[in-house]
Amino acid sequence: MRFRCSGRMALSWVLPRVLPELARGLTRPGCGRALRRAASASASVAPDFNSFVTRTNTCGELRSAHVGQEVTLYGWIQYQRQGLFLVLRDFQGLIQVIIPQDEAHSHVKNLLCNAPVESVVRVTGIVSPRPPGQENPKMPTGDIEVKAETAEILNSCKKLPFEIKDFIKKSEALRMQYRYLDLRSFQLQYNLRLRSRIVMKMREYLCNLHGFVDVETPTLFKRTPGGAKEFLVPSREAGKFYSLPQSPQQFKQLLMVGGLDRYFQVARCYRDEGSRPDRQPEFTQIDIEMSFVDKAGIQKLVEGLLQYSWPEERGSISTPFPSMTYEEALAGYGTDKPDTRFGMKIVDIGDFVRRSDIRFVQHALSYPHGTVKAICIPQGVRYLKNKNLESLKESAKSQFNQEIVEIICRPDGSLKSLLTRFLGEKQQSQLVQALNMQADDVVLLAAGEEKQVVRSQHYDLVLNGNEIGGGSIRIHSAEQQRFVLEKVLKEDSEVLSHLLEALELGAPPHGGIALGLDRLISLIVGAPSIRDVIAFPKSFRGRDLMGNAPDYVTPEELKPYHIQVSWPLEEKEAKKN
Amino acid sequence: MRFRCSGRMALSWVLPRVLPELARGLTRPGCGRALRRAASASASVAPDFNSFVTRTNTCGELRSAHVGQEVTLYGWIQYQRQGLFLVLRDFQGLIQVIIPQDEAHSHVKNLLCNAPVESVVRVTGIVSPRPPGQENPKMPTGDIEVKAETAEILNSCKKLPFEIKDFIKKSEALRMQYRYLDLRSFQLQYNLRLRSRIVMKMREYLCNLHGFVDVETPTLFKRTPGGAKEFLVPSREAGKFYSLPQSPQQFKQLLMVGGLDRYFQVARCYRDEGSRPDRQPEFTQIDIEMSFVDKAGIQKLVEGLLQYSWPEERGSISTPFPSMTYEEALAGYGTDKPDTRFGMKIVDIGDFVRRSDIRFVQHALSYPHGTVKAICIPQGVRYLKNKNLESLKESAKSQFNQEIVEIICRPDGSLKSLLTRFLGEKQQSQLVQALNMQADDVVLLAAGEEKQVVRSQHYDLVLNGNEIGGGSIRIHSAEQQRFVLEKVLKEDSEVLSHLLEALELGAPPHGGIALGLDRLISLIVGAPSIRDVIAFPKSFRGRDLMGNAPDYVTPEELKPYHIQVSWPLEEKEAKKN
Repeated sequence: MRFRCSGRMALSWVLPRVLPELARGLTRPGCGRALRRAASASASVAPDFNSFVTRTNTCGELRSAHVGQEVTLYGWIQYQRQGLFLVLRDFQGLIQVIIPQDEAHSHVKNLLCNAPVESVVRVTGIVSPRPPGQENPKMPTGDIEVKAETAEILNSCKKLPFEIKDFIKKSEALRMQYRYLDLRSFQLQYNLRLRSRIVMKMREYLCNLHGFVDVETPTLFKRTPGGAKEFLVPSREAGKFYSLPQSPQQFKQLLMVGGLDRYFQVARCYRDEGSRPDRQPEFTQIDIEMSFVDKAGIQKLVEGLLQYSWPEERGSISTPFPSMTYEEALAGYGTDKPDTRFGMKIVDIGDFVRRSDIRFVQHALSYPHGTVKAICIPQGVRYLKNKNLESLKESAKSQFNQEIVEIICRPDGSLKSLLTRFLGEKQQSQLVQALNMQADDVVLLAAGEEKQVVRSQHYDLVLNGNEIGGGSIRIHSAEQQRFVLEKVLKEDSEVLSHLLEALELGAPPHGGIALGLDRLISLIVGAPSIRDVIAFPKSFRGRDLMGNAPDYVTPEELKPYHIQVSWPLEEKEAKKN
Repeated sequence: MRFRCSGRMALSWVLPRVLPELARGLTRPGCGRALRRAASASASVAPDFNSFVTRTNTCGELRSAHVGQEVTLYGWIQYQRQGLFLVLRDFQGLIQVIIPQDEAHSHVKNLLCNAPVESVVRVTGIVSPRPPGQENPKMPTGDIEVKAETAEILNSCKKLPFEIKDFIKKSEALRMQYRYLDLRSFQLQYNLRLRSRIVMKMREYLCNLHGFVDVETPTLFKRTPGGAKEFLVPSREAGKFYSLPQSPQQFKQLLMVGGLDRYFQVARCYRDEGSRPDRQPEFTQIDIEMSFVDKAGIQKLVEGLLQYSWPEERGSISTPFPSMTYEEALAGYGTDKPDTRFGMKIVDIGDFVRRSDIRFVQHALSYPHGTVKAICIPQGVRYLKNKNLESLKESAKSQFNQEIVEIICRPDGSLKSLLTRFLGEKQQSQLVQALNMQADDVVLLAAGEEKQVVRSQHYDLVLNGNEIGGGSIRIHSAEQQRFVLEKVLKEDSEVLSHLLEALELGAPPHGGIALGLDRLISLIVGAPSIRDVIAFPKSFRGRDLMGNAPDYVTPEELKPYHIQVSWPLEEKEAKKN
């Protein structure tokens, strides 16, 4: 069972503690200036999709205003009807093309009538209004049609492995095998084009408005301490391996030491997590680092970045984003990735039930961080059947070893619960008030001990309950960093000796953030999976189903890298036979 | 011996054959429109380097106009003199800071006098004119100084491993080990910031002006046929490997099949070439592909791209670039990467000496493609001593098994050469005319057979004798592609079956180009090596000397990937002991 949230976007910061600087940062001089600069830079021209080619227009852009013009179009045949007309498609949309029926154009008719669906054609013709009554208001180009004068089949399509219109219903594996066919869909075209536009706007904001430098950092590096999830790349030196880093963290900090005081990169990152749903072995992050900045500065930067690059058609976002501490997030939403559109906050009712004689409550409160919390579900009696309640209680028990007790508010305002007999009238009315209970509401109550967390100068950015970014003000003192490495993280600091030495040689204070681009875009377009915003994603087992990667290589190909395969026993046997 | 070329930039196309379309492409409708759009889009605002931080100005931007203002600066101590003043540095330049000498500021004086060179400091103070006579016209900020009011040492620098001013003289290995110190130099700051600016302009041109879509393609793919230079990445499936592709070639073609008709990517590419001078195992290319385009269209696109992104301070380039066929390049310059600034073209003099009785000439001309060629070096007697000529002849003999004979033009216009006695007076004057010989010129003559080349729809872009781009109009017919793979390239077409199948299912005609970004930027900034335009380059053996990559990993770390190291025998022995 999931509670539905409204469609709007809810961005929020989750911080280790309330920041007095936050408010200060928001009225800092220069904000007005930045906004004016943004406005001036975004007064852009629409791109010309027809430069460098003989295409005069895209199919989807034609309107009544084009009537009378001769146009040259390139596109795919969506369908063809009775030798009379066909619908041509490109990335911008569909256009109806009238097939000429007169003798002089028999060649054109012949070509267009015999071309299979999804063939690529060039059509030249005159834009005409559709005959009265034949307009199609559902089609953006529905007022017009193009009367074909000449045509050319540029590539004839062989029989498709399935009907293209049923494609969406096919298994995802098949769609990934024929990814290039799936890419022709309006949805994927939209997703990838929007992604490109958003990233471009981000670059404008960072480079052109705020003087950030786009620096490419290596992806062939070496294993970081604890980097168990890093892919290895064998080198030609026996026994030595590169590693594909999970982020450019070390490099961006070294750039700060190197005086490149505002860095960003749309960085390809790698993580070998085996099979995990909706993860990709390679992914992209907007990687940002700044010198001489504090948390408030980074937050302001990111708020401006998202506001500037947010696509108009997806509504607007307002800044500053609400900010809460990690403890507030856990207390109010029970997670460090709160969906702030979710109105039903958790309420601490420990004080109201402390003096009651309920055994599991008393047990929980006897611990140092014992607590009793409740959540009120408005009109809960409508949504929660008995079996829903039972299944909730069961999973609370099996997953968290927790008791859940419900309290129902009857139409007359009285409470129905196993607990009422342990609560006095005053306690009951205090509960009703604290939880703002109305008739037909259901309250779920649980008791237990809160885990404590002691944290660094860290901040997370959360969108609709998804963590889309995280960062911190870094440690720029070598001693502190060495202490954290050795005493807190229990790592061998020798592996990071180059970084520690760099911190000793004039490292400025610095901080930054990384935004998960794939997740961010998937949330903006409302895609169910990050695979829908990646041109060629891997399956959840890390396979490319189109090109069949990874694949076997010959022992000869492994020789220069001084490695050999250790076959598991059964495969070894199978290979022998 | 190298002939000096003028400083200007010479871009040219090298094509398989003369293109009648080229001239047509240049006057195509839409060019004027594109230029107007470009002009409108490039009317940009200067970036704000001080947003989000408490810095009011960068050190290098201060001028007389700032006199009287209180400024807050962040930077590195370049040097300090006698407790009286110090020079503070950031990426934009240097500023002189006056250390206060009065009792009230003793704390500030104390801080600034004791901070080691290259420490990071914050200084707040008033911009003042320098006392008359103490201005420094060599310094952009030389008319002013900042009288420090408050200061803070943000990070004290430990003793540097060498004097920073001598850094440039140190070995490159040491500079690469301390790359972050080298990055503080104005030269590397300039190179990396210019690179970022140029790439940003390219993106504006492609995305904002011409509707290209920035699509990220995977770098974990599978070995391409003949991809012997591809790094391997072991997967968790025994015996199966990903491969890091040398270019997104397959993906960009599949994007065209998928209807993303204008693609570009600033693409990370990988090539394992072992040790080769001035190559990097990972490098970057501007990768472009378009549907429905011809060679002329691609050339026009790239000419516009380079013109739009070319940095003003490096002069301007004019379009169209000169275009020559592959045969013309070889005939005129003896290379397919001609430096067109090099005025001394090769001249075919076969006809003038055909009837002479010179044995090695006759021998060469007896072959089907036999030829005699010469190059005239103006004022050659001044530059070429006997030992230069001898060494030229020796290398021609040892490297190409070629005889070289010189002809010297005496001050009176007569020719001095071993050959003159074989040539009649008419032949001699024909030679003088064909080679435009003047007094003191030296002609070098060689004879041999020309190699013949049978080529595709290919084009290369050459800058000052360096190939910086290459591309082609692709084969979009599955049959043709299969024929080329099997019959011409002798590859197993099965490995590319997904691409062949894609070509059968509605592939549009398409073509593209890839520009080598590292090389291009290094030529623009005049850097001797591509390492000077890469933030963290590898050594020529492919090592990261700062972080020490590649490095050994434990056998346990190899286990999930089902591989083990095959130690060469001697290392195995050494490991035992």
